[in-house]
Amino acid sequence: MIILFASGWLSLSAQTTTPAAPTPDENTIRVLFDAALAKGESYQMLEHLTGRIGPRLSGSPGAAAAVEWARHVMQEYGFDSVWLQPVMVPHWVRGQKEEGRIVNSKKMGTVQVNISALGGSAGTGPSGIAASIVEVKDFEELKRISGSVKGKIVFFNRPMDPTKINTFTAYSGAVNQRGSGASEAARYGAVAVVVRSMGSNVEDYPHTGGMQYTPNVPQIPAVAISTKHADLLSKLLKDDPSLQFYMETHCETLADAPSFNVIGEIKGGEYANEIIVVGGHLDSWDLAQGAHDDGAGCVQSIEVLRLMKAIGYKPKRTIRAVMYMNEENGLRGGRAYADIAEKNKEKHIAAIESDRGGFTPRGFTMTATDSEKERIRSWKPLMEPYGLTDFGQEGGGADIGPLARLNVALIGFLPDSQRYFDYHHTPADTFDKVNKRELEMGAASMASLVYLLDKYGLK
Amino acid sequence: MIILFASGWLSLSAQTTTPAAPTPDENTIRVLFDAALAKGESYQMLEHLTGRIGPRLSGSPGAAAAVEWARHVMQEYGFDSVWLQPVMVPHWVRGQKEEGRIVNSKKMGTVQVNISALGGSAGTGPSGIAASIVEVKDFEELKRISGSVKGKIVFFNRPMDPTKINTFTAYSGAVNQRGSGASEAARYGAVAVVVRSMGSNVEDYPHTGGMQYTPNVPQIPAVAISTKHADLLSKLLKDDPSLQFYMETHCETLADAPSFNVIGEIKGGEYANEIIVVGGHLDSWDLAQGAHDDGAGCVQSIEVLRLMKAIGYKPKRTIRAVMYMNEENGLRGGRAYADIAEKNKEKHIAAIESDRGGFTPRGFTMTATDSEKERIRSWKPLMEPYGLTDFGQEGGGADIGPLARLNVALIGFLPDSQRYFDYHHTPADTFDKVNKRELEMGAASMASLVYLLDKYGLK
Repeated sequence: MIILFASGWLSLSAQTTTPAAPTPDENTIRVLFDAALAKGESYQMLEHLTGRIGPRLSGSPGAAAAVEWARHVMQEYGFDSVWLQPVMVPHWVRGQKEEGRIVNSKKMGTVQVNISALGGSAGTGPSGIAASIVEVKDFEELKRISGSVKGKIVFFNRPMDPTKINTFTAYSGAVNQRGSGASEAARYGAVAVVVRSMGSNVEDYPHTGGMQYTPNVPQIPAVAISTKHADLLSKLLKDDPSLQFYMETHCETLADAPSFNVIGEIKGGEYANEIIVVGGHLDSWDLAQGAHDDGAGCVQSIEVLRLMKAIGYKPKRTIRAVMYMNEENGLRGGRAYADIAEKNKEKHIAAIESDRGGFTPRGFTMTATDSEKERIRSWKPLMEPYGLTDFGQEGGGADIGPLARLNVALIGFLPDSQRYFDYHHTPADTFDKVNKRELEMGAASMASLVYLLDKYGLK
Repeated sequence: MIILFASGWLSLSAQTTTPAAPTPDENTIRVLFDAALAKGESYQMLEHLTGRIGPRLSGSPGAAAAVEWARHVMQEYGFDSVWLQPVMVPHWVRGQKEEGRIVNSKKMGTVQVNISALGGSAGTGPSGIAASIVEVKDFEELKRISGSVKGKIVFFNRPMDPTKINTFTAYSGAVNQRGSGASEAARYGAVAVVVRSMGSNVEDYPHTGGMQYTPNVPQIPAVAISTKHADLLSKLLKDDPSLQFYMETHCETLADAPSFNVIGEIKGGEYANEIIVVGGHLDSWDLAQGAHDDGAGCVQSIEVLRLMKAIGYKPKRTIRAVMYMNEENGLRGGRAYADIAEKNKEKHIAAIESDRGGFTPRGFTMTATDSEKERIRSWKPLMEPYGLTDFGQEGGGADIGPLARLNVALIGFLPDSQRYFDYHHTPADTFDKVNKRELEMGAASMASLVYLLDKYGLK
């Protein structure tokens, strides 16, 4: 696309009428976006968090370093208060070695495949597990063949539905294989499970992620396999249903470890006891930098408070940035935050979470009363010039979910979803996958909503 | 983001009411999106065009190979007619060597910088040009200092405005430096120009692009410098206004060369003489693969016709995919297409162009009559479930612009703009920068609009 000869679309930028003078709200939102896009600091923060600290699974040295970093950054920005909220977290470690092999297939012999233990899984130990492997699409199919599962590895191979426009809907439709596939298979005597990665495309790397064991069912090892190797395994199994699969993992769950939520706030000048939260989760999976999941949400949340200070806005209510610990494998941080808020009789009016990646903003989801939703939707015309048009979906965020019982309006920042599951929970979730402008636009969108919530409240 | 613990947003995918049965239009659009996302072929086409053919500047062997490829692909898909439309194109070649140096700066001595000749520029030849260099922001500033420009190199260093939400607006506000900076500077006796790259961010590589010489003004060499080195040069110039700049380029303009537009069509069953065009441009700059600019638009256009056949849709009107040649440095293809349409008294009812990259769809721009715009906007509710919400902007596309005189409704496919100018006209515009789902969603969006245009017309 050039412009010299592009008479057809040059008119795009032409103003045919003099625009009306902006209202104070229009003006403040414009100033917030200008500050985020011309002098934003979210991208530099993310570069540090992902590049200098990197993976930060709950209980790991990376998580501890991220806690110190977040506290330090918010102190340096001069927020009114910055503190740590202690929380005990699950402490799962992957161990050094992971190995998967399709053994003695008819067409290709033995093939090394890319696997990763699912978070929370038991390991196989050094002797590994070698067994026949049987493919199923879902728990119904597993039940139908349950008589033939004993002593075998179960291979869950239902892809994310590519026709779902919202990739989170496709994820929801596939993720029970990862979350509870191991226990479902163990009920019928399976010795391990291999789960097709939760990815939108066919790629080389496995996507890890949380799984849970059902009480009183044997805890068998569970691994994710890359989508490319899931396709290969499925193909080789069709030719040779008796082929063997070998897997070896050394992961284990240690005793719970101490960690922290990290909180910074700017005190309200008029209704200091009314709190508006904006947050993300500081922990990430161990395989990668956690740039989109959820480094983006953390730096955007800090940036919201920094932007307010930078433009000289004095909030009426108290604005809090919360970096939750342990969203990925326990939600202990989100639960502890709500418990303490309840115990301290804090009055939260709204909580916003950014945990869908640092992509172009599309809108906000809401789990709130009808009148709260109506109030927030009344602000849509102020956001539309920045591309935020979707205010119609239910939803908040995992970490803020526990605040529901305190009747807090829960709001999810909603960016474009198309690329999220290319990177999610993989070594590919790195800083270079985040676009500077997209990240900054998200921070400005959240700051704009916080500004409106602060100015007008929700009652 | 996990799901096991994510009670807050799980409700996103829950259906609280039974949806009404889809209308025939809703159903056809759903089927088009399903076909594009589950069994699309645009991504594979783009992989071939970018990886096997690569750069394809007008007159180059790559452009000739792309013509043959596009014809072959459309023939293989069994479109009713596929033909080449001859057009003579400008033939500019870069030559082997390009070199830029900041010479003898006070702080850093001599520094090699990343430059690329602008398309259409004269070369310096092997002796290069070494001269003092003077920085300006715009033509007004150039005019103010015009008395001191003689014998010097002029450095145009006005960045794209980062606060513009639509990056094309920022581009429009900066690109006159590239397009006519050389002639503006030559009027005052400058010997060459260095232009800050048209990029959204600060990066290492220069962005080339078209420039034009004003008649009867000396044709001085013009190069783009990477945004990073533009910042460096500006900084060093502040310390040492007398520093020298050296540039050497070997580009030249050869005699016009023969080339082609490539056209494929599916004949209409009812109003075969009424034509709907969907297209992109087959040429690209020579520095890169031209994945977003505009390989994406080409494969999406072919995919529109393929999708119609794949779902068994029989159009009433004639649907044409047009791959224009020479959008980047002459627009000869777009002009020839309109000339031939006029000469043959063809009746085009609408032309859609995709030339803003293969990103997530946001809507369509229109240059059309009020009643045509109203008709198209009445279809917005059918497109909104797929994220297309912006039908409010003027604009068509460069290649379809010449059809305006035939009273054709001009429509521009409008994807998200945030990433486009990270890659535009650089070696970074490669296949891996295109997301499969985003590309496919664009093809499906265009196919849906073509379906509605075909079914309902515009009168």
